Amino acid sequence: MGNNHFKRDDRDVYFVLKEHLKIDRLLGHKKFADFTMADFEMVIDLAKKIARDEIAPTFQDTDRDDCARFENGRVYAPHCFRKLWEIFRESSLFALTQGQEYGGQGLPLVVAEAATEFFMSANFAFGTYSGMGPGQGAIIESYGTQKQKDLFCAKLYDGTWGGAMALTEPDAGSDAHLITAKAVKDGEYYRVTGSKVFITSGDHDLTENIVHLVLARIEGAPQGAKGVSLFAVPMTWVNDDGSLGAANDVTCVGIEHKMGLHGSATCQMSYGDNGACRGHLIGEPGMGLAYMFQMVNVARMAVGLECAAFTANIYANALEYAKQRVQGTRYGDRSGKRVRIIEHPEVRRLLMTLKAYAEGMRALVYRGYLCEDIAHASEDDAEKQLANDSLALFTPIIKGFTSERIWELCSMGIQVLGGYGYTSEYPIEQYARDCKIFSIWDGTTYVQAIDLVGRKIGMNGGRAFNAWIDEMKAFIAAHRGGDLAPDAAALEQALTAMLEVARMYAVEFTGDKADLVPLTASRFLDMCGEIAVAHLLLEQAVIAQRASAQVQADHPDYAFYMGKIASAKFFARNVLPAAIGRKAAIDMGDMTAVTLPEEYL
Amino acid sequence: MGNNHFKRDDRDVYFVLKEHLKIDRLLGHKKFADFTMADFEMVIDLAKKIARDEIAPTFQDTDRDDCARFENGRVYAPHCFRKLWEIFRESSLFALTQGQEYGGQGLPLVVAEAATEFFMSANFAFGTYSGMGPGQGAIIESYGTQKQKDLFCAKLYDGTWGGAMALTEPDAGSDAHLITAKAVKDGEYYRVTGSKVFITSGDHDLTENIVHLVLARIEGAPQGAKGVSLFAVPMTWVNDDGSLGAANDVTCVGIEHKMGLHGSATCQMSYGDNGACRGHLIGEPGMGLAYMFQMVNVARMAVGLECAAFTANIYANALEYAKQRVQGTRYGDRSGKRVRIIEHPEVRRLLMTLKAYAEGMRALVYRGYLCEDIAHASEDDAEKQLANDSLALFTPIIKGFTSERIWELCSMGIQVLGGYGYTSEYPIEQYARDCKIFSIWDGTTYVQAIDLVGRKIGMNGGRAFNAWIDEMKAFIAAHRGGDLAPDAAALEQALTAMLEVARMYAVEFTGDKADLVPLTASRFLDMCGEIAVAHLLLEQAVIAQRASAQVQADHPDYAFYMGKIASAKFFARNVLPAAIGRKAAIDMGDMTAVTLPEEYL
Repeated sequence: MGNNHFKRDDRDVYFVLKEHLKIDRLLGHKKFADFTMADFEMVIDLAKKIARDEIAPTFQDTDRDDCARFENGRVYAPHCFRKLWEIFRESSLFALTQGQEYGGQGLPLVVAEAATEFFMSANFAFGTYSGMGPGQGAIIESYGTQKQKDLFCAKLYDGTWGGAMALTEPDAGSDAHLITAKAVKDGEYYRVTGSKVFITSGDHDLTENIVHLVLARIEGAPQGAKGVSLFAVPMTWVNDDGSLGAANDVTCVGIEHKMGLHGSATCQMSYGDNGACRGHLIGEPGMGLAYMFQMVNVARMAVGLECAAFTANIYANALEYAKQRVQGTRYGDRSGKRVRIIEHPEVRRLLMTLKAYAEGMRALVYRGYLCEDIAHASEDDAEKQLANDSLALFTPIIKGFTSERIWELCSMGIQVLGGYGYTSEYPIEQYARDCKIFSIWDGTTYVQAIDLVGRKIGMNGGRAFNAWIDEMKAFIAAHRGGDLAPDAAALEQALTAMLEVARMYAVEFTGDKADLVPLTASRFLDMCGEIAVAHLLLEQAVIAQRASAQVQADHPDYAFYMGKIASAKFFARNVLPAAIGRKAAIDMGDMTAVTLPEEYL
Repeated sequence: MGNNHFKRDDRDVYFVLKEHLKIDRLLGHKKFADFTMADFEMVIDLAKKIARDEIAPTFQDTDRDDCARFENGRVYAPHCFRKLWEIFRESSLFALTQGQEYGGQGLPLVVAEAATEFFMSANFAFGTYSGMGPGQGAIIESYGTQKQKDLFCAKLYDGTWGGAMALTEPDAGSDAHLITAKAVKDGEYYRVTGSKVFITSGDHDLTENIVHLVLARIEGAPQGAKGVSLFAVPMTWVNDDGSLGAANDVTCVGIEHKMGLHGSATCQMSYGDNGACRGHLIGEPGMGLAYMFQMVNVARMAVGLECAAFTANIYANALEYAKQRVQGTRYGDRSGKRVRIIEHPEVRRLLMTLKAYAEGMRALVYRGYLCEDIAHASEDDAEKQLANDSLALFTPIIKGFTSERIWELCSMGIQVLGGYGYTSEYPIEQYARDCKIFSIWDGTTYVQAIDLVGRKIGMNGGRAFNAWIDEMKAFIAAHRGGDLAPDAAALEQALTAMLEVARMYAVEFTGDKADLVPLTASRFLDMCGEIAVAHLLLEQAVIAQRASAQVQADHPDYAFYMGKIASAKFFARNVLPAAIGRKAAIDMGDMTAVTLPEEYL
């Protein structure tokens, strides 16, 4: 059994939920009226305990001796995940947000995901199995027939069966509309044939069955996105009475050998090799991509949560190490007195970067989940619209920004530990290997950037984007004086730079300069991410300033609030100014990369 | 046997050597008078061939099935390295630069390292064995007695014996002056006792003997750096007649399990467990750290070469993939026509970043090696001084800047390949794992940054720094007009920003603001690196512009020169502006990270 590297606490989680986002407001909506804050806390506290005591000890094992394996045509999940699966079943932790009709807990997303963040810090590989069944079940619950719901949802929600999302084909990664898997009507069902790759948990031995949601093209369907339909394809057929039938001609051909996430089975799948793979059509023909996109959006938000979860525990580990490791003398001290490395300004800078990002990413992602909850639960159309707008705008920012930053943050965490950080004795190098997929799956950073620039900022006449800008301008206006004045000014400077780029997109980067849009979009996304995080951290600083005045200086909350204020200032003054550099590069309007003939590369 | 991922060519290597640095000037010095350019080319061409045909096929194997192993108290190097060792012996590739008296080839560093760059692209893990013996031999040749030289150098230079540099102790990584290993005089020799960690190739089975250069403290020596001496400690004792004697009480206790470089044995060593470990004192007592620093500086420059080598092959692999992989439609094209991903502007941007950095890092490092050659070979005192100044100034910039950038560049390379980039089928994820040690070993990035800011820029009244600045100012003045005018202006803007920070270090960041020096030093180092690379690439662009006018447009050189000009413009307009963002952050003068009490973290 590996070391238990789980060193997080829950203070900032509760700060964001209660003091910043004030999620108790959700209790006022009918959807959540049966809950109390105590219910929410019970789930979160249980998640933290299970993450720390049960999941975290598997982290290093499932990277090494107990990886996902492919043997004799079957996939075996890490053996230690069997125990975790049982714990999840006993505590009903699979379907925290899904409908109560089929056994889900019906919790708000923001609560469920706060709980899930602890699981992800502990060992994200487990989540690549546990999260799939409920995720697929939710699609079936949304779009399936009553019979399909009755057949599948309860067992996907309680962990009896697993799930998989079968989208990508060898030739169609980002080109989902070009998939070639086929479906032919056969009575009530369809015969499905095709190959899929990069299918997370497409096969494993944790459950008696795995339900694949497969995108395929019905015979005779139109080309392109509108010809793609969604099918529920169980690996073992499910009879009408719910009992298991015969094998459904779904085979795993192999699993990928990857940089990280060795505990997760990334499967190459084959459907209908013997013409005997049957599937249920879910919803309307031709709507497959639209339905699947509900799941893709969930996955994009989840990337933000994964990055926050990783960063939080990297920070906690780096902090603990820095407090203990003695090395070097304090800068400027000629006495030769050795100090713990936490006393070195450079180590402080790295730690503060990790702290500010851990908190900033958390705020960004939780706020997104809260919007989603409000969009679902609100009875007020204007509030619903505002929440939906915000969620749509922020999804690409969250996915793109956090997944690029986590790579840099892992490097910083390793750097704090020096040579030991490069060894597998400590967990950070594994987080670095595990995280690198985040900027790729569920839409690469570029896909996010083009979604942001090409669609989201101009959506509904710029309604969502303008609402965000107005919110920040109001914040800046309210804090021009006082302790946070330099930070409000830094936010304003970055915001002005970002708005100038947005203006360029609208009026300058057109015609023969149109390629400047895709050439600069990912940098613009980074600017938006930096600004969004700075804004949220500054909002938190204002709250922390008020709250700190209410507690004694020797109360742990006082130190926490002071730390929150420091996170905001540090981020605004040390990280946010990078936006100025990004703007300076965009200002150059350089098209060398595209005008260069390919043969000169 | 893994795939052969080696896809580099040698065109830019020869461009830098011949057209940019004009290394034929070295032939005019007595030290190199016996060589011709044809001799240099023969070595480089041979290196490229061996790298591609022999070393590269081992790259993935030594990461997986044929790693360094520790079994029953002994270390086994990857088995496939035995064949490479024989090839290196047959072709005399171990000691390319070392003295000819003991069988070295006496080549200029800049030539030898150009050859070595190919080896490093192919499989750097092999170099962690092959480079150590000659490196230790060079120290002995510089500082040892005639007897010591006769005993050790020839066999370290021809690969009969290996070498290891035993500096770091568990409690003294960056604190080399605090080492506790002991040496007690015993006749002609010393009895050495102590423990060392992170000893690269401290034990292996590729050679019949391994000579450790061990830093230890002679009984009664003063505390601190001045009490540290250097000892040659062979694992098997060497009799006066050169024959091998008994085992010398040197044991490997274990090897580290690391994120990457699995082919390299990172050893925990124990000396004198049974009181029977003898060593030769090298040079004067108390001079150990000074001697060792010669080796450390070699290792720091080598990091730059490693980063250039990795980036060059990452670029070559990403380029080949991007030319073949079809995915998505061109931005703005509504026809739905799918294109190879090299046609996507974002992919072009990533490829150009890789290309510009590969070439820029190469120029930066080769220029450093040329300075070292001139410093050794020149008969002119002013020229020698200028070269020594430049080398001293650039060593921390090269080590610190390249080792931080390579992490980002690996991410970009993986991103070009999408999901496939995350798999072990392609080489880039392995480069990412292998490279992460570069920002740590031989002095962390912060150690480099403080060396630069605290010592090098002010060294000799700022002589080296000012000479560099004057060189750049002259370049900018000469190119204010013409095709490169925007690039010269961008360089000037970044230079002005950097000089303003240097001024702050001298006059503002003092007294109670003194901590702003260590808080900002690594960002200043990044600025210096960005500026240095931009300057060198622009110098190359000027050369390429002139040269391109001399060749037909259908000659391969024409495409190469056009590509060189594009690299310079791309870097100056897309990468260099980050310096403006770094300056903006330094301008904030934020000390939050150090003023924050530790308990608030």
